[in-house]
Amino acid sequence: MIDEIGKQMYMLCARLFPICRSITGEGFRQSLDILREYLPELQIHHVPSGTKVFDWEVPLEWNIRDAYIIDPDGNKLCDFKENNLHIVGYSVPVDLDLSLAELQPHLYSLPNQPTAIPYITSYYKARWGFCLPHELREKLKEGTYHVFIDSDLAPGNLSYGELILPGEQREEIFFSTYLCHPSMANNELSGPVLATFLARWLKTIDARRFSYRIIIIPETIGSITYLSKNLAVMKQNIIAGFNLTCVGDEMDYSYLSSRFGDTLADKVALHVLKHTHPEFKPYTFMDRGSDERQYCSPGVDLPVCSMMRSKYHEYPEYHTSLDDLSFISPAGLSGSFAIYQKAIQCLEANEKLKGTVLCEPQLGKRGLYPTISTKDTAKLVKNMMNILAYADGTRTSLELAELIGVPLWEILPTINTLIREGLLEVID
Amino acid sequence: MIDEIGKQMYMLCARLFPICRSITGEGFRQSLDILREYLPELQIHHVPSGTKVFDWEVPLEWNIRDAYIIDPDGNKLCDFKENNLHIVGYSVPVDLDLSLAELQPHLYSLPNQPTAIPYITSYYKARWGFCLPHELREKLKEGTYHVFIDSDLAPGNLSYGELILPGEQREEIFFSTYLCHPSMANNELSGPVLATFLARWLKTIDARRFSYRIIIIPETIGSITYLSKNLAVMKQNIIAGFNLTCVGDEMDYSYLSSRFGDTLADKVALHVLKHTHPEFKPYTFMDRGSDERQYCSPGVDLPVCSMMRSKYHEYPEYHTSLDDLSFISPAGLSGSFAIYQKAIQCLEANEKLKGTVLCEPQLGKRGLYPTISTKDTAKLVKNMMNILAYADGTRTSLELAELIGVPLWEILPTINTLIREGLLEVID
Amino acid sequence: MIDEIGKQMYMLCARLFPICRSITGEGFRQSLDILREYLPELQIHHVPSGTKVFDWEVPLEWNIRDAYIIDPDGNKLCDFKENNLHIVGYSVPVDLDLSLAELQPHLYSLPNQPTAIPYITSYYKARWGFCLPHELREKLKEGTYHVFIDSDLAPGNLSYGELILPGEQREEIFFSTYLCHPSMANNELSGPVLATFLARWLKTIDARRFSYRIIIIPETIGSITYLSKNLAVMKQNIIAGFNLTCVGDEMDYSYLSSRFGDTLADKVALHVLKHTHPEFKPYTFMDRGSDERQYCSPGVDLPVCSMMRSKYHEYPEYHTSLDDLSFISPAGLSGSFAIYQKAIQCLEANEKLKGTVLCEPQLGKRGLYPTISTKDTAKLVKNMMNILAYADGTRTSLELAELIGVPLWEILPTINTLIREGLLEVID
Repeated sequence: MIDEIGKQMYMLCARLFPICRSITGEGFRQSLDILREYLPELQIHHVPSGTKVFDWEVPLEWNIRDAYIIDPDGNKLCDFKENNLHIVGYSVPVDLDLSLAELQPHLYSLPNQPTAIPYITSYYKARWGFCLPHELREKLKEGTYHVFIDSDLAPGNLSYGELILPGEQREEIFFSTYLCHPSMANNELSGPVLATFLARWLKTIDARRFSYRIIIIPETIGSITYLSKNLAVMKQNIIAGFNLTCVGDEMDYSYLSSRFGDTLADKVALHVLKHTHPEFKPYTFMDRGSDERQYCSPGVDLPVCSMMRSKYHEYPEYHTSLDDLSFISPAGLSGSFAIYQKAIQCLEANEKLKGTVLCEPQLGKRGLYPTISTKDTAKLVKNMMNILAYADGTRTSLELAELIGVPLWEILPTINTLIREGLLEVID
Repeated sequence: MIDEIGKQMYMLCARLFPICRSITGEGFRQSLDILREYLPELQIHHVPSGTKVFDWEVPLEWNIRDAYIIDPDGNKLCDFKENNLHIVGYSVPVDLDLSLAELQPHLYSLPNQPTAIPYITSYYKARWGFCLPHELREKLKEGTYHVFIDSDLAPGNLSYGELILPGEQREEIFFSTYLCHPSMANNELSGPVLATFLARWLKTIDARRFSYRIIIIPETIGSITYLSKNLAVMKQNIIAGFNLTCVGDEMDYSYLSSRFGDTLADKVALHVLKHTHPEFKPYTFMDRGSDERQYCSPGVDLPVCSMMRSKYHEYPEYHTSLDDLSFISPAGLSGSFAIYQKAIQCLEANEKLKGTVLCEPQLGKRGLYPTISTKDTAKLVKNMMNILAYADGTRTSLELAELIGVPLWEILPTINTLIREGLLEVID
Repeated sequence: MIDEIGKQMYMLCARLFPICRSITGEGFRQSLDILREYLPELQIHHVPSGTKVFDWEVPLEWNIRDAYIIDPDGNKLCDFKENNLHIVGYSVPVDLDLSLAELQPHLYSLPNQPTAIPYITSYYKARWGFCLPHELREKLKEGTYHVFIDSDLAPGNLSYGELILPGEQREEIFFSTYLCHPSMANNELSGPVLATFLARWLKTIDARRFSYRIIIIPETIGSITYLSKNLAVMKQNIIAGFNLTCVGDEMDYSYLSSRFGDTLADKVALHVLKHTHPEFKPYTFMDRGSDERQYCSPGVDLPVCSMMRSKYHEYPEYHTSLDDLSFISPAGLSGSFAIYQKAIQCLEANEKLKGTVLCEPQLGKRGLYPTISTKDTAKLVKNMMNILAYADGTRTSLELAELIGVPLWEILPTINTLIREGLLEVID
């Protein structure tokens, strides 16, 4: 089941990969439309350029049709149609001849990763530029180059997708992910694709206790825009949230905390990772770099953290053409799907529990305890006794699991048995 | 003195050892009667079979006169009169012939401890069975066996002993121990015998600040029964309690915490063990297994922990015939006596203290400080200065001792000197 | 600058060194007069002998003109005029002949430091005595010795210096140091000299946020006397204080905590030492030995700790003639000056900060952020983002610096830039 989902997720990544996306523009909307094929309920919203969003302003919409350099020998270099990373994001249109010396300030490459095309953007200052492998740049010779960029920056919209899945309660679990990167895979197609498949799975759950808010936005300006329109309801409803990013490769799991690492989201993430992948790498908010920067900012204060595979900034392929479809895998994606499923399961099951009798109940007469005493008690019985020993009405099931030192999902059947037998009750 | 007490305690263990005890029955009452020879004030209470006690019911009373197996050669095996561990506790009466194959499900032995008779009970489901060394069981041959158990299960009483020693204050120190085990020594004759000797010593203390509640009960059903009758007064009065068990051998000291390990009882136990036996083994409530299961259960919430020698479940002789009089010793028992004496001493002395003057007092004019300055100050003076430095009216003497890092009993004379000199006062 | 100050401080130590000081007397006042040459604002106060100060009484004033021993061969030994450590402080006058055996109880020497003259006092019990190198004592031969001490103990005054530098706010930073030691350098001329030079520097600061209370007193009886006269205003105003002592040598830095180590003074001291001298030696209040004994006593409860070089009691030269001008140095003194300057800088800058916009502000449009995205963000930008991420109006700049893990003085320019740009505001 998970493997099948991993394959489907990977295929969706592959389909989205070639599209040139940025924080605005047709590529972003085209990608949202593909996700809607998987998730028809996804609502698309448009916010016009120039809209004030807190300290920011929605920028002009950027669209690009073609871009390349013709070298002195007439060869076409940095062809946008071959790889959309060749163009600096938000490049203004140009069509001119210049010398190599004049061209150089507009070129970007990585001396330490000579085969990689870097990913560069300039959203808020008018620039143009090309990105190319350093080994290619070193071979450029003197002469006249022709540069051509057929782009436009014009009033338009910042677009994003939003899905609200109502549950029994007003309280929400929040997932945010961003779709504004051009042809890179782990960072960032893995996040939007995971969000899509988690939403499809959530729809199949019969009795969702919580509501779910899932948004697919451009990074930074998108989360700021979304917050500026929804802050009050988000602060009122969201009890735990996750920024989905870098969830596609097969390396170690990572955890990035919320501002103080003390929210329900952090507790659930740590519980899941500790019990499923104890070797996971913990990062603090000092290592942040995505939309938790906005969600956890002072006055916003949403409980948002991240469970990732290889964290942004921490793998060499990050923000280069090497972060391609070979860097991610079905197994990598399905591993991430599994841990987020577990996190959701923990959140849905996280209720305050209270025993109904004083002292230990007589489990034996209910067939829940061996009727003959021996030197050992089975683990199941031990868990049952431990749940009863700590369920004093002040602790949730997640806190009980943490106290006992077992995964919540392992003791859920026992908790349900005890509720059914009338020995435990859920406290509001 | 301690050694003499150790010998007396050991002799009492030896006298009680042969009696067949269970959670009810004549053996239990006979043992209580012997303890009353040492402690005439011990009150014996009887609770009739069928009495509802929280989620439980007081069971039928079990008495047994004889039990054995006759093998195909006419030899008597598993003779109850030779060792009362041979019979599964609460066995129903039988008198029948059966084949070895039919007998086997009623036999209990330990393949890993082939010379030991295991201790097995079946209080709440009607069963019969025999316990024997595995090496003996392996030699049983085919043929007809005759099994005979002359026991009865009939309405009667659950009996227990209770001693309330009144003190100056209503607040109580609580000791609970259990007497329901047949011929085993560390677990459990050491606890009732220690309780008896602590009570005898407490009676000799002139001005007991606290009252003392000491109960000698059957395990589990006894504590549940006692709590069901006394919960309100216990919750109101008990400031620290200890479950006395496994206090007879000479191996390492152990500590088992209360539910959260944060009660006055825990603090005192840790203070005593840290300063007297720093190599002691700490266990958490996850490792519990005796009546703290009831005393620390949610809603009961009594401050009860245990200081032990070799903890139940942690030594191979536990719950077998190997836990005999050779496993315990006078020195083992007197060591336990000594640490509980220290704990009581700490509790009795644990008062909030407050200095009476601002800044350091001039100790020199009172002859409490060297009148000539040198490079070193004696430890005694240092302790005195430290007590004064932290006695701010918010801390008890135990907390002062913990802050200073010295045993409370070591600084008590200094505290008393400072009180006598009017430099410290006790705060209510 | 620091080196120049180090030289000036050392020269002042050298000038004060030969004077015979005690807790009262002309030597103390003569030393204060020299400090007033550097700090004319220093007020000199006199408290008469016999004044009750909490549990103490101001003692008689001690003055001494001459003291020596004449040995059986007519040689002058222990000549006070050669080294004032030869005389036990507060020695009563004597003029008599006695045998070596009669003399011995009045002699003090250190067998383990045979070349050192120990520093001995007997303020509160009438005694006389001489201190000498143990190697000299061992050579004393039988015969008649003449001892002569021309001293007097008479009603007079306990004198001390006090300087209040008013600031914008009523709240005070407190510095206390003691000047009652005869010819020793690190303990204690370094403290009064550092206090003098810190005061001179504080006077040059344009807008002092806080007021400064600086006192130069005799140890113990001086702080008790000062507290008895000023406790209410000190408790009301002092937000952080430091006992200046042992700040002249070049060995490791040390830190001695306040009573519970949790005051603003402790936080600042630890912040400064951690970032400037991470190898510093931390000591707890259990290791105290100077006027923090009074300032941190129950009911006084002032926030006072110490940053030192080699702590008293911890270096072999302590309280002997070996703690001379060769034990301290200009570099040692200027190092201490520097860390206290940093501590004052941190205190003056320690204000609650709050961001003024929701979400991250757009730093780019203010020229505070690179307009082109790359894989790395400079440290300066990272600090700026971190300040904004944690400045939620509940934390001071010192707490922000601790959270971010950088020295406060390193991020002060950035904080000021953000305030100037209207992105941060100071919260009262």
